[in-house]
Amino acid sequence: MIDLMDDFSIGVDLGGTNLRAAAIDRKGKLIDKVSGSTNVSEGRDAVLNDMVAAIVALRDKWKATHRLAGVGIGVPGFIEMEKGLIIGSNNLPGFDGFPVRDEIEKKLGTPVILENDANAAAMGEKWMGAGKSVDDLVLLTLGTGVGGGIVYRGRVMHGVVGMAGELGHMTVVPNGNPCGCGNSGCLEKHASATAISAMARLLALGHDLTSEEVYQLAIDGNEKARAIFASMGSALGIALATLINIFNFPLYLLSGGVLAGWDLFAPSMMGEIERRSFTYRNTKTRIERATLGNQAGLYGAAYLPFEKQHA
Amino acid sequence: MIDLMDDFSIGVDLGGTNLRAAAIDRKGKLIDKVSGSTNVSEGRDAVLNDMVAAIVALRDKWKATHRLAGVGIGVPGFIEMEKGLIIGSNNLPGFDGFPVRDEIEKKLGTPVILENDANAAAMGEKWMGAGKSVDDLVLLTLGTGVGGGIVYRGRVMHGVVGMAGELGHMTVVPNGNPCGCGNSGCLEKHASATAISAMARLLALGHDLTSEEVYQLAIDGNEKARAIFASMGSALGIALATLINIFNFPLYLLSGGVLAGWDLFAPSMMGEIERRSFTYRNTKTRIERATLGNQAGLYGAAYLPFEKQHA
Repeated sequence: MIDLMDDFSIGVDLGGTNLRAAAIDRKGKLIDKVSGSTNVSEGRDAVLNDMVAAIVALRDKWKATHRLAGVGIGVPGFIEMEKGLIIGSNNLPGFDGFPVRDEIEKKLGTPVILENDANAAAMGEKWMGAGKSVDDLVLLTLGTGVGGGIVYRGRVMHGVVGMAGELGHMTVVPNGNPCGCGNSGCLEKHASATAISAMARLLALGHDLTSEEVYQLAIDGNEKARAIFASMGSALGIALATLINIFNFPLYLLSGGVLAGWDLFAPSMMGEIERRSFTYRNTKTRIERATLGNQAGLYGAAYLPFEKQHA
Repeated sequence: MIDLMDDFSIGVDLGGTNLRAAAIDRKGKLIDKVSGSTNVSEGRDAVLNDMVAAIVALRDKWKATHRLAGVGIGVPGFIEMEKGLIIGSNNLPGFDGFPVRDEIEKKLGTPVILENDANAAAMGEKWMGAGKSVDDLVLLTLGTGVGGGIVYRGRVMHGVVGMAGELGHMTVVPNGNPCGCGNSGCLEKHASATAISAMARLLALGHDLTSEEVYQLAIDGNEKARAIFASMGSALGIALATLINIFNFPLYLLSGGVLAGWDLFAPSMMGEIERRSFTYRNTKTRIERATLGNQAGLYGAAYLPFEKQHA
């Protein structure tokens, strides 16, 4: 008997604000999607139950015609992959050190793979996005914080416990802004939406401006607002030059909400890279925008169970 | 007929000062070694001829009892591996862009693999030195400059053209000392023998002090000399914390002449790492001295032909 069922997997992107899940088939076709809010205020169990409900809904809807390969979940924070734990995530209070993966597996009765959200996004871009044509890439996600993911020979680099790729915590300004991780001058304290708002406060541009509002001011010609994006570009350029000098990869991608400011931060970013990286000046190295937007994490999370089958 | 011949390969370490070559068997036993000076002042062809003579001497001496697997050569500078070129090496004038590998192959009649010297040293430490027990490590070589090598899953990470691992050109002080690579604040401008001498000049400790002399002053209690090693430790710590945050590898090794100052620079280095790396504080991460000394590059270069056979 010939098996005519297609494989699919379910990818989940659990953010501090949004909870999204998608059913994606082995060829990378998104066949269904659900999304909602992450009800952080209602506590960890409510968030877990919402996530499980979303997964079960997709599973039950598609199981008649598709075979489930597995479930992958991208979460913010430092991940201990083997233990299936999140540690040090500011965006998901109550999850610190909690056995997320085992708990979800118990509720679902299906194996689950836990992954850092930016690692998942990097893998998503490699699988179906801007990184399709290469085997090696680095992704920086510019959002509330700055996340990073490194794909080498088609697979995410995890390191010993799964914490590799924490590129938002590269030091770009040794005595720079203090970070929750204990460091000062982390990339994410100089190149995230939060950093843009903080710089707007420091420059007396406004006390409660969002990064979008600072962006609008910059577009309207405000010099302080423009300086903020130039400063963000410098920080990104310092980090990217170091990454290029370390990896000599063909492709470095940027994604996330702050990517909208590309035209404002790219000139100073590219200037720093050009000056600081002999490798950049002497090799073909692309610095580009990611193309899957906020769906990259869903694709990457969904890819995890397929990757595991091939391992 | 049973083949009783052992395989061996010849590893060469071509530095700006010393030229060394060794015959090493497949099990990593060093069976013979020759060394001399690199006659840079006599020009490129003299250096190439000296190197070829050293290789031929070892080959002819051992070919009756051993089968030559190949020749590996470690050289300073940025390497284009596929083309077999050195580009941007200050230590080997006349070699910039010259087809070193092809030229040596022609003279030898034997295939040659060209590799960056610090990459070779990292592979040497992985094969027979401090990294034997792990699959993933980073090596920093602290000498006239600072070199770097990254071993992942037992193999050197090369990047697209072979320039990966240029860790001496990570930016540790954004507006720091200018570097020949075009950047300012490169690790090697703050943590090499040259940097120690330069800091001694800046602090009016002495105008032509070698790093060894600064070391001796520090041991004798000179506060300026001690501050220089503390500053070097800070620069190393900033770079290592970023590397740990990027890779989450189990082991980071230091080697090179400046390693003698370990007791003087390690406290500030470890302080920076502790503070700047959440991953360091939450995982088992070793920062250690390499153990093969200046032979690491020979072992690593000799390993290249064996590795290629397994590829």
